[in-house]
Amino acid sequence: MRRFRLCFIGFGNVGRALARLLAAKSAELRDNYGIEWEITGVATRRMGWRASDEAIDVSALLAGTEQTQTHTGINEWLAYAKPDVVFETTSLSPENGQPAIEYLRASLQSGAHTFTANKAPIVYAYDELNQIAITQGKRFLFESTVLDSAPVFSLFRETLPAVKIRGFSGVFNSTTNIILETMEAGRSFAEGVKSAQELGVAETDPSHDVDGWDSVMKVCAIARVVLKTPLLPIHVRREGIRGLDHRVLQAARAEGKPFKLFARATVNADGSVTASVRPEQIATTDPLGNVRGTSLAIHFELDTIPGLTIVSHRPNLQSTAYGLLADFINAVSPTDQQSGKY
Amino acid sequence: MRRFRLCFIGFGNVGRALARLLAAKSAELRDNYGIEWEITGVATRRMGWRASDEAIDVSALLAGTEQTQTHTGINEWLAYAKPDVVFETTSLSPENGQPAIEYLRASLQSGAHTFTANKAPIVYAYDELNQIAITQGKRFLFESTVLDSAPVFSLFRETLPAVKIRGFSGVFNSTTNIILETMEAGRSFAEGVKSAQELGVAETDPSHDVDGWDSVMKVCAIARVVLKTPLLPIHVRREGIRGLDHRVLQAARAEGKPFKLFARATVNADGSVTASVRPEQIATTDPLGNVRGTSLAIHFELDTIPGLTIVSHRPNLQSTAYGLLADFINAVSPTDQQSGKY
Repeated sequence: MRRFRLCFIGFGNVGRALARLLAAKSAELRDNYGIEWEITGVATRRMGWRASDEAIDVSALLAGTEQTQTHTGINEWLAYAKPDVVFETTSLSPENGQPAIEYLRASLQSGAHTFTANKAPIVYAYDELNQIAITQGKRFLFESTVLDSAPVFSLFRETLPAVKIRGFSGVFNSTTNIILETMEAGRSFAEGVKSAQELGVAETDPSHDVDGWDSVMKVCAIARVVLKTPLLPIHVRREGIRGLDHRVLQAARAEGKPFKLFARATVNADGSVTASVRPEQIATTDPLGNVRGTSLAIHFELDTIPGLTIVSHRPNLQSTAYGLLADFINAVSPTDQQSGKY
Repeated sequence: MRRFRLCFIGFGNVGRALARLLAAKSAELRDNYGIEWEITGVATRRMGWRASDEAIDVSALLAGTEQTQTHTGINEWLAYAKPDVVFETTSLSPENGQPAIEYLRASLQSGAHTFTANKAPIVYAYDELNQIAITQGKRFLFESTVLDSAPVFSLFRETLPAVKIRGFSGVFNSTTNIILETMEAGRSFAEGVKSAQELGVAETDPSHDVDGWDSVMKVCAIARVVLKTPLLPIHVRREGIRGLDHRVLQAARAEGKPFKLFARATVNADGSVTASVRPEQIATTDPLGNVRGTSLAIHFELDTIPGLTIVSHRPNLQSTAYGLLADFINAVSPTDQQSGKY
């Protein structure tokens, strides 16, 4: 049995869902994985850098009534909370990945396994952060960044060795899925945004999704880690969905080739990667043609498997939280086989 | 660098494709995984138990011109060929898994990592074979048995810890896919069988596929390993596709709900599993509604991910062979992260 001190940087919807999931699965973690845990630090913009000598009560934390000490910054906080594991789920800063990169760097340097739900640090600082993790003998993982928690990074890291990836495509963004489907039903762009906001998938300002940046960041993160190619957002041809007329969308759906905000990456003969995110008509018979609503999917072309599609249907907050939990368990557990249980 | 002695039991289409794939990927195996290999034994019904002191030349083996010694049975053969790794790809014996189970037992007991493309030994002898592997400190893996090489077993073993599986469904059989699609196009059952045979997916006697046994065995293998429930073929409600009239199939396709030979397994509240394999109408908007031709797919319902679908599009012989190669690499390699490369 090993006991892990857990800290959260960011404690919004995803962080709170993760705390609830950890509590709900604590017996299974203990019995099947030999994992016990306690939360010793939580940092948010509102609360500041809060830490405790003793385990913070999860119910009190979720209710906002816990009594903890406030520290002046991340390094003092890390020194006090002494995390074995840090979950970083701060709001996205897509321009440059800050301050998330700084938080992840400090967490890894303190010797904690570090897991993030943010794409930007993968795009802008993967090499540096992963190198710190290797030096520290810890892991830096981020499975929830692309398809919430459907395996993408771990798929290639753990299950598909020695494959050559020829390219991938994907439907990576729920907000645009929902806006396009709302417009296909004859309603307006603004009504589509409202639907996506009501479902909790769109931000107050939906530009990041609508203009394709969210999908571009996912393409770059996958390219960086899985294709081992340092693709930056500026290298991706990007076109959002604002220019699409609802009559065009309706006609496309009627002919069985609805528009999606579609991501594509192709590995060229010289090893470089050409990528785009733009509205494309995808036949409903296409591997990704049935991905609707909040569902997300990726399709890979491999030398040894002509096509491999992973679809995550209607992922929810708990799914995103599970991506972080899976990172934690995978980082600290031997495989079932190694532990003799499989 | 580690050098592995490889042996093949069965050397038909899959075994030969694997030998070619090993040869094609040998530089990558050496450079990226520190794996060198040589083949020291091959057994087939026609050739008998052949082994060599020295590496068998792969080209000569594929051409049928290699010079090797013949041995009288598997134990003498294993003692002479001294495999580190055995690939078992003999013809299927669905009734009881023999003689494959005997071969796998002997291979594991000799201390070899052992990988099979046969489902029946998983259904009838998984516990025993896996226990021998654990005792020997070796691995018994079989990724190619369900979706050729798309990850199913490794997905749960390596990437999705601590999930609760509520059930799964699948389109597991290419032969019936092709027969049904041929009949939808107005042609006969016999023409469908012929198409499937020409594509190399159906046996001379297609009964095993057509009557649902192939899909039933896959359901039982997944239940046994992933759900940890010893489901036997006799427990699965089974109905093949012989009773379907082509007019019924055409009408179903026309209304957008074509028939598939569909597999389902549901985990009941008491932990038992209810499973069926039978023709069902699947809407083309369903997660598995677009699985056509030789493509195969599985859909899981999990507590933490509402739906997770894996589709393998048009897998070929090399895909099946790759499933065995992936087992080999995964068995003998630390993860990339552990080796400091990821």
